Amino acid sequence: MKTGAELANGHSVGAQMHNLVVRLYPTCRSITGDGVRATLNELQQLVPLEVHEVPSGTAAFDWTVPKEWNIRDAYVKDSTGRRVIDFRMSNLHVVGYSVPRRITMTLAELRPHLFSLPDHPDWIPYRTSYYQEDWGFCLSHNQLLSLQDGNYEVCIDSTLAAGSLTYGEAYLPGQRTDEVLISCHVCHPSLCNDNLSGIAVSAYLARHLAALPARRYSYRFLYLPGTIGAITWLSRHEEQLDRIRHGFVLTLVGDAAASTYKQSRRGDAEIDRAFEHVLRHSGKPYAIQKFEPLGYDERQFCSPGINLPVGCLMRSPHGKYPEYHSSADDLQHVRPEFLEDSWQKCVAAVELLEGNRRYRNLNPKCEPQLGRRGLFRAMGGQPEQAAFERSFLWVLNFSDSEHSLLDIAERARLPFSIVRRAADLLLEHGLLEEVRDQPTRSSD
Amino acid sequence: MKTGAELANGHSVGAQMHNLVVRLYPTCRSITGDGVRATLNELQQLVPLEVHEVPSGTAAFDWTVPKEWNIRDAYVKDSTGRRVIDFRMSNLHVVGYSVPRRITMTLAELRPHLFSLPDHPDWIPYRTSYYQEDWGFCLSHNQLLSLQDGNYEVCIDSTLAAGSLTYGEAYLPGQRTDEVLISCHVCHPSLCNDNLSGIAVSAYLARHLAALPARRYSYRFLYLPGTIGAITWLSRHEEQLDRIRHGFVLTLVGDAAASTYKQSRRGDAEIDRAFEHVLRHSGKPYAIQKFEPLGYDERQFCSPGINLPVGCLMRSPHGKYPEYHSSADDLQHVRPEFLEDSWQKCVAAVELLEGNRRYRNLNPKCEPQLGRRGLFRAMGGQPEQAAFERSFLWVLNFSDSEHSLLDIAERARLPFSIVRRAADLLLEHGLLEEVRDQPTRSSD
Amino acid sequence: MKTGAELANGHSVGAQMHNLVVRLYPTCRSITGDGVRATLNELQQLVPLEVHEVPSGTAAFDWTVPKEWNIRDAYVKDSTGRRVIDFRMSNLHVVGYSVPRRITMTLAELRPHLFSLPDHPDWIPYRTSYYQEDWGFCLSHNQLLSLQDGNYEVCIDSTLAAGSLTYGEAYLPGQRTDEVLISCHVCHPSLCNDNLSGIAVSAYLARHLAALPARRYSYRFLYLPGTIGAITWLSRHEEQLDRIRHGFVLTLVGDAAASTYKQSRRGDAEIDRAFEHVLRHSGKPYAIQKFEPLGYDERQFCSPGINLPVGCLMRSPHGKYPEYHSSADDLQHVRPEFLEDSWQKCVAAVELLEGNRRYRNLNPKCEPQLGRRGLFRAMGGQPEQAAFERSFLWVLNFSDSEHSLLDIAERARLPFSIVRRAADLLLEHGLLEEVRDQPTRSSD
Repeated sequence: MKTGAELANGHSVGAQMHNLVVRLYPTCRSITGDGVRATLNELQQLVPLEVHEVPSGTAAFDWTVPKEWNIRDAYVKDSTGRRVIDFRMSNLHVVGYSVPRRITMTLAELRPHLFSLPDHPDWIPYRTSYYQEDWGFCLSHNQLLSLQDGNYEVCIDSTLAAGSLTYGEAYLPGQRTDEVLISCHVCHPSLCNDNLSGIAVSAYLARHLAALPARRYSYRFLYLPGTIGAITWLSRHEEQLDRIRHGFVLTLVGDAAASTYKQSRRGDAEIDRAFEHVLRHSGKPYAIQKFEPLGYDERQFCSPGINLPVGCLMRSPHGKYPEYHSSADDLQHVRPEFLEDSWQKCVAAVELLEGNRRYRNLNPKCEPQLGRRGLFRAMGGQPEQAAFERSFLWVLNFSDSEHSLLDIAERARLPFSIVRRAADLLLEHGLLEEVRDQPTRSSD
Repeated sequence: MKTGAELANGHSVGAQMHNLVVRLYPTCRSITGDGVRATLNELQQLVPLEVHEVPSGTAAFDWTVPKEWNIRDAYVKDSTGRRVIDFRMSNLHVVGYSVPRRITMTLAELRPHLFSLPDHPDWIPYRTSYYQEDWGFCLSHNQLLSLQDGNYEVCIDSTLAAGSLTYGEAYLPGQRTDEVLISCHVCHPSLCNDNLSGIAVSAYLARHLAALPARRYSYRFLYLPGTIGAITWLSRHEEQLDRIRHGFVLTLVGDAAASTYKQSRRGDAEIDRAFEHVLRHSGKPYAIQKFEPLGYDERQFCSPGINLPVGCLMRSPHGKYPEYHSSADDLQHVRPEFLEDSWQKCVAAVELLEGNRRYRNLNPKCEPQLGRRGLFRAMGGQPEQAAFERSFLWVLNFSDSEHSLLDIAERARLPFSIVRRAADLLLEHGLLEEVRDQPTRSSD
Repeated sequence: MKTGAELANGHSVGAQMHNLVVRLYPTCRSITGDGVRATLNELQQLVPLEVHEVPSGTAAFDWTVPKEWNIRDAYVKDSTGRRVIDFRMSNLHVVGYSVPRRITMTLAELRPHLFSLPDHPDWIPYRTSYYQEDWGFCLSHNQLLSLQDGNYEVCIDSTLAAGSLTYGEAYLPGQRTDEVLISCHVCHPSLCNDNLSGIAVSAYLARHLAALPARRYSYRFLYLPGTIGAITWLSRHEEQLDRIRHGFVLTLVGDAAASTYKQSRRGDAEIDRAFEHVLRHSGKPYAIQKFEPLGYDERQFCSPGINLPVGCLMRSPHGKYPEYHSSADDLQHVRPEFLEDSWQKCVAAVELLEGNRRYRNLNPKCEPQLGRRGLFRAMGGQPEQAAFERSFLWVLNFSDSEHSLLDIAERARLPFSIVRRAADLLLEHGLLEEVRDQPTRSSD
């Protein structure tokens, strides 16, 4: 599948997405602050993104928008003045939301503020302390073991002060105001699968959809700080949530693992069935996960008082790969081909949503004579029948206003795209008529 | 199981059905014409059949009854005057509905009109061209390869002209006007499993039912040209279709394969459950197929605007045996014992439909005292309980107006016939009362 | 798990239950008579039991309370005056409800009145003839074979006369008049698994519940003669059956086999789901049986006109162990540890019923901020999350008034007790409110 963008510059979508990950990798993001702004600024080159700022202290359901955190530098120097831990080498070295600090202390005093992963002694862990004012450093376990007793100079040159929470939103209007919501989080520093892969696939999916000549649905892309960003957005858009007919969260979509789709809380929503269909017909291994109230922002979208039909597309599931939340979730951990595979599955799922309609067979009593219309081989008696010819009969038999094309494709065990094509031809020949859904608010 | 017919002449039902296949085999049938009439005439010796003629040009839903086709002779002669392809040797040699033709042509000119099966070089394929005027010959691939260059004299001595479509219908009235529909197709020439096996089992099932002292349901047997015959019949009987409570198509019921029952479009109709029960308790391998809009006339009976509870009993499923639509589907391919096995399953399914009633336990609070009524061993304490005694308790416990005897048999994993017998005894002892279905139009 | 009783006397509940079995073992019980009275008298030492007497001849639905049977002695003496069959050695030797008899007869005349188990030649079978006046002796097959021809003096010193049927009932009032019914049968003579194990577990379960500071439900324990006792009790309490919200029959709960729970007729009653949850999380093998109208008094409780949500807890299922209804179902066949395991499963199921409530999340739009309330680790970013912390999120997400805590525990695949604890803490923090069931008649 080639997009306009790809033809234009000769690079595959996968390569372009990986390039975007490379560009965004060095930035130190958190749930607030300039790292998020820089990230959204970069995305605006690709996607018609509006950037929103919500002041610290704003109430959002049970939560409050926190102070804004920014950081310029941070280090621990040994008694010789050498930086033994240096924020400039990796922004994972500082616990996210560490309060400003300048102090000299012994290793024993410093030790409770140091975090490492003994099971992966070369990796730097990723830690935050958003809602409890604290500070700390993360470092590899080997580095930790090499620290000598003595005095250390600690510097965290950060600010934690009234400011705002920043998020990005892109809206692609369609024939209907019914929306598909696509959300990813933008609050992690130099981690690639979690969350740069989601940002990249979301951005290039928006780019693909923006280039389409027509969209049945409107599309809303959200680039949110995790948890507090989703809660803030939801609390500010309560009155328009009933427009959201389908949605999914994108995260962990660049690693080598098989695709995993996590169902929405409803479990049988159209988006759930769409992704399951796409994965089943992908010809590759995949997994379907039932909804659980753990994971990413689907937790908020699927909270009981919101309960939107929002699933989550991943490869390695949340927390289930060793590199998760460590420096090993790096530029080698996500690959162009896996990003592209995830992107293609999103495109296929969206095409399914766009094309999944219900029809009424206008000739429901017995089969219509397809041969007369040139829709069927005229000469009978051969044992083979092509999948395409079978699709005509499946679509005609089950187009009783009740079954959608996805229902029919599932029942016939045929790919949606073939069933869709058969329906289009039958429609052209006047054998079907569309049964309109009740859209919540329709402009068509 | 012995029928009156069998006792009368000393032959098993299977042998009698195979004899009928032998008698009908030579006739050249098609969707119209004298072959169908000759076939129905033969069946009238066995079944009280009315023969109907529907004029060419009659509209039937989206279709039109075609011209009538008849054929006297057909051949291809080589330059020596020898018939190298001869309709008199096999009526499969001529493509069904071939238009009249007398012409001399080279092998190269003739070649596009010749059809063979390269994978089965000794078999003659079966082909038709009903709705596109054309002509052709079928022959074995070896015969095709043996043809020398040179001029050939082609003769198709057929007529294709206004006439009629012929079908047969037998009606066996019962206590109710609610009907069981049994349909088979009568349009194939010298092919045995497809369709003579279905004709034979249907005819002997009708014979069996006609000899019963009483029938709860009325039975309608149809002998129809495939597709157009079913469409024609349905279009002429729309107003009485709501009488059809159960139905099945009979086809491919004489070969050695295990029985396959294909469900009606509804999938959970009583006929579906009846055949599944019969096959499960048959002690032999079997398969259940979900409905798909491919196959035989169940396609029409189960079209969305008709949607009758009509399944299909087969052995080898449609198109899934190598001999399908070839000269190898011959008198050796169907055997008396397989015909008889299929017939017995139909008899058992019909007995189940006849006996499948719902009852109300008239003593629903705790068990009634069966021992006092002589229905139960009086001496307790033994570990064994016969299936029959268990049936009493199952029938009593679940005769709550909701569960049919089939429901109970399925839940108890007991054969329907045992449960039926227990219910009859309980009824005799005044412990049950029948809960009447709402018949569509009842005469009882 | 230790009960007050256990702490008091230093014996495990299992040992105490086995002691009770030992004390009750010698008594000759039947469906009426002094053996039942002696048994209930013994139970009154443990449980606040009321003893009820229902006169012979009383109508009970389709049944009549039979004459009362008592027996003092019974024997068969050979010609030397030696007791070759002696009721004083085992009360199984006499067929239950044998009518009085004093007669001398030859072995050939006696033979039809003798019953043995040829497959288990050392065991005495257990037999009764409640509703057909008869008499007989049971003996081991080896003993039967050893009998010499000659005259035998038969004596059955029994009475069968107007009297009464005796049963026991203990009622433990709770906050609600909604009841949990626990029933066992008390009509078998010296048999241990069937029925002394059920009596013992029931009595010690009653003792455990009586000692609780508060009970949500009221509990009714029944000690009934099998079949006729249950029918009699039901016929006398029809007007209050709608108070019974849950129930189970206890029988065969002392042998070494894995626990088996037999579902109520409804199959998805709360008691069915409670026991399945307890068995699934027991860490031991178990089996779930669908309801069938065979077995113990669940047959009556689940008859179609009664249809209470009453299941049955067993170890070996009814009739499915060789020792069933024979002298081999003795004091060695039931063991303290298996009695205790069954008792613990009952306690766990009852705790589940007591604690299984539905809640409404008072903060249903997005997650509440648990960290702020000290309910959640404040420092994020670690890959591990404890089952307890996950429980908070599960309870919050699914407390939408529809899902009970058992629903949530099942969906989260977490033990009920953990989910219950999480709900209690959330309730304390004002994050949940209980959704009251509609009790049938509530006093709270």
